[in-house]
Amino acid sequence: MHNNWSSADVLLPYLPQAFREYMERGELPGGRGSFPAAHRPWLHPEDFKRTDATPPGGGAAGSDHAYMCEQLLDRYAIDHAILNGEEAIEVSTLANPYYAQALAGAYNDWVADEWLPRDERLLASLVVAPQDPAGAAAEIRRLGGHPRFAQALVSSGSQRPYGDPFYHPIWEACAELGLPLAVHLGGNAGVNAMPTGCGPPTFFWEAHALLCETGMGHVASTIAHGVFERWPGARLVLVECGIAWLPAILWRLDEDYRALRKETPWLRRLPSEYARDHVRLTTQPLETPCNPAALWPALEDVGARDMLMFATDYPHWDFDDPASIRLPPEWREPVMDGNARALYGLSAGEAVAAHR
Amino acid sequence: MHNNWSSADVLLPYLPQAFREYMERGELPGGRGSFPAAHRPWLHPEDFKRTDATPPGGGAAGSDHAYMCEQLLDRYAIDHAILNGEEAIEVSTLANPYYAQALAGAYNDWVADEWLPRDERLLASLVVAPQDPAGAAAEIRRLGGHPRFAQALVSSGSQRPYGDPFYHPIWEACAELGLPLAVHLGGNAGVNAMPTGCGPPTFFWEAHALLCETGMGHVASTIAHGVFERWPGARLVLVECGIAWLPAILWRLDEDYRALRKETPWLRRLPSEYARDHVRLTTQPLETPCNPAALWPALEDVGARDMLMFATDYPHWDFDDPASIRLPPEWREPVMDGNARALYGLSAGEAVAAHR
Repeated sequence: MHNNWSSADVLLPYLPQAFREYMERGELPGGRGSFPAAHRPWLHPEDFKRTDATPPGGGAAGSDHAYMCEQLLDRYAIDHAILNGEEAIEVSTLANPYYAQALAGAYNDWVADEWLPRDERLLASLVVAPQDPAGAAAEIRRLGGHPRFAQALVSSGSQRPYGDPFYHPIWEACAELGLPLAVHLGGNAGVNAMPTGCGPPTFFWEAHALLCETGMGHVASTIAHGVFERWPGARLVLVECGIAWLPAILWRLDEDYRALRKETPWLRRLPSEYARDHVRLTTQPLETPCNPAALWPALEDVGARDMLMFATDYPHWDFDDPASIRLPPEWREPVMDGNARALYGLSAGEAVAAHR
Repeated sequence: MHNNWSSADVLLPYLPQAFREYMERGELPGGRGSFPAAHRPWLHPEDFKRTDATPPGGGAAGSDHAYMCEQLLDRYAIDHAILNGEEAIEVSTLANPYYAQALAGAYNDWVADEWLPRDERLLASLVVAPQDPAGAAAEIRRLGGHPRFAQALVSSGSQRPYGDPFYHPIWEACAELGLPLAVHLGGNAGVNAMPTGCGPPTFFWEAHALLCETGMGHVASTIAHGVFERWPGARLVLVECGIAWLPAILWRLDEDYRALRKETPWLRRLPSEYARDHVRLTTQPLETPCNPAALWPALEDVGARDMLMFATDYPHWDFDDPASIRLPPEWREPVMDGNARALYGLSAGEAVAAHR
C-alpha cells in the first residue's frame, strides 16, 4: 500500500542543511511543497488516486492513518501491510544522485518516526536511490536493521537492469541485512531508460499496460548476472508489474539459456528455477482474461503459486480488492498469506514479528 | 524464411550512382562486401546461422536456392514461403534515411530480379526504411503492386512505436496497395530505441528472450493510435517476436483501455478485438513450457488460433521444424495453412496466386 504526505515539506527536518535549502529555495517541479523529481510523460487523465480515498478531513489520499484503517486495514482485517510511499521512489529519476539519496533517507526517517509507531500492523520499505549504488548501500546499512523495514525499495524505472554489476553494492548490502530488494513500478522518467522497447508510447492506458516490460528486464538481468548465485539469500520482489507475462518470459529465458549458457558459466540452474526460488511478484494488477481460468495454467507451469503475493495498490485507481480478487482455491492461502509470511519472516497469527 | 547474399555487393548495380560510390568507397562496418548498417551490441556467441545451412558449394547460409530447396522447401513440401532477406531490414538503424531507403530499394530490386523468378513457391517482403516514412511510402508505391511482394517489411527496432503519426505515410501506402505491414525482429541498434524496457541487457540469451518487448509496443501503439480504424484493411504482422506474451499484453491493454478510453475517443472496440482482426504473429519461436499444454489456454482466450502463422526462421539457429512443431490438433490447419492463405490471398492448392 501507499502512504503519502500532503506536502513534501514533511521531509525538510530530515534533510542535511545543504539539501534542506535546496528544497526550500530551489527549483521544484510543482511549486513549494511538491517533491523534487522528474515526472513521467504519461499523465493519467483522471489522476491516479481513488477519488474516494481523499480523507474526509482533507489532505492527500493515503496521508491519513485513521482513514486508511477505515478503508483498508480494519475493513479487510489485514494482519500486515507494507508501506511503499508515494513519490519517494521517484528519486531515481534525479540527475543529482546525492540529492536523490538525501531525499530517500529523509523519507525513510519520516516513515520510521511518523508511520511505523502508529500501528503495529505496518511494515515499511526502505527507499534508496539506485543511481547511487554506494549511497544506496550505505542507506541500507544505516536503517536496514530496523525491525519494521521489510525490504529495500527502488523504482522499476532505472538506468540499467538491476542485475548489472553497477548495482552489486545494493545487492551486497541487502545480503548483509537479509533484506529483499523490491522493485516497484515507477520512476519512468528523468535519467532513467525509456521503460518500453520501441521508443515512447503515447497514451497513459497504452503506456500503463506496457510498463510491465521493466519487470521482465529486471528478472532476466538479475538471473543472468548471477545475483542469486553470488548472494544465495537474495530475493527480488516485483511490485505492481503484473504477473501474466511471467511464464512467457521464463519460457523464453530457459530456451535461450539452454542454447547459449556458455555466455554465463556462473549459472548452474535454469532461469525459471532461479525465479521460482528467488523472485516474488505482487498480484497487483491481477490480469483478467475473458475466461478467468485461462490465466492460471501458464502460471502453474512456472510454479508461480509459490511466487505471488497479494497487493492492493491502495489508494490508487486500479486498487485490487482482497475480498473479490479471483484466485483458484488452492492458490488462496499462499498468495494471500503464506508466501509473504515466508519471505518477510512473519509468523502466522503474530501481529508484527521480529521478522529477521 | 531468410534469403541471403554472400556479399552485399550484389546491391551495387541497383543503387543510384551517388550511393553506389558511397558503398564502394565509403566506410563499411565489416570491410568491403559487408552491409552498411549499425550492428546490435548483443553478439551471438556461436553466430546465429544454423551450422548445417552453409551451402556445400560455398557462400552464406540462405544464399543458395538449390540448397534451400533441399533443406526446406522440398523437404517439407512447402507450398509458399516468404523471403524476408537477412541484413536488409537493418537499414532502419542508419542515421542517413536517404541512403537507408536507397539500400532497401536496391535489395527489393535484387530480390525481384534474382529470387522471385527462380521458384514459383516464393513470395517476398518489400523492405522499407521506416525512419524515412515518405520515402518508405514511395518505395511501397513503386514496387508494392508486384504480385509476388506479399507485404511491406520493417524491423522491430524503431525510433518510435509504429502506430505513431510519424509512420502514418507508411500505413497509408500499405492501405493503397492492400499490403500488410510486417515487423520482423531486428534493427535493435543505431538510431533506434533501446529494444527493452530498463536499459541495456548484457548477454545475447538474455537480450534475445526480451526482444519480444518491441512486438508488445508495436501492437499497443497501432491499436491505440487508431491505425485499424483509419485504415480498416490494415494488417500488422509480427515476425519472430514470439507469441506467449500476447495474452498478457492484450488483457492489460483491455483493462487499461476500459478505464481510460477517453484518451483515445477514435477507438470503438477493445484492444483485443482489434488485435484479433488486424494483428497476425508468426509462431517462430514457439515457446516451450514444461507442460506443453500450458501454452494454449491463454492464447485460446484471446482468439490466437486465428492470428498465428507458422514460420521457420530458416536458416537461423533457432529454426522451428514444421514436422515436429507441437500444436493442438485443432490449431494445426489454421496455423500451418489457413491463416496465411487468408492474409496473403493464397488459394488452397494454388502454387502462387495472383494474390491481391
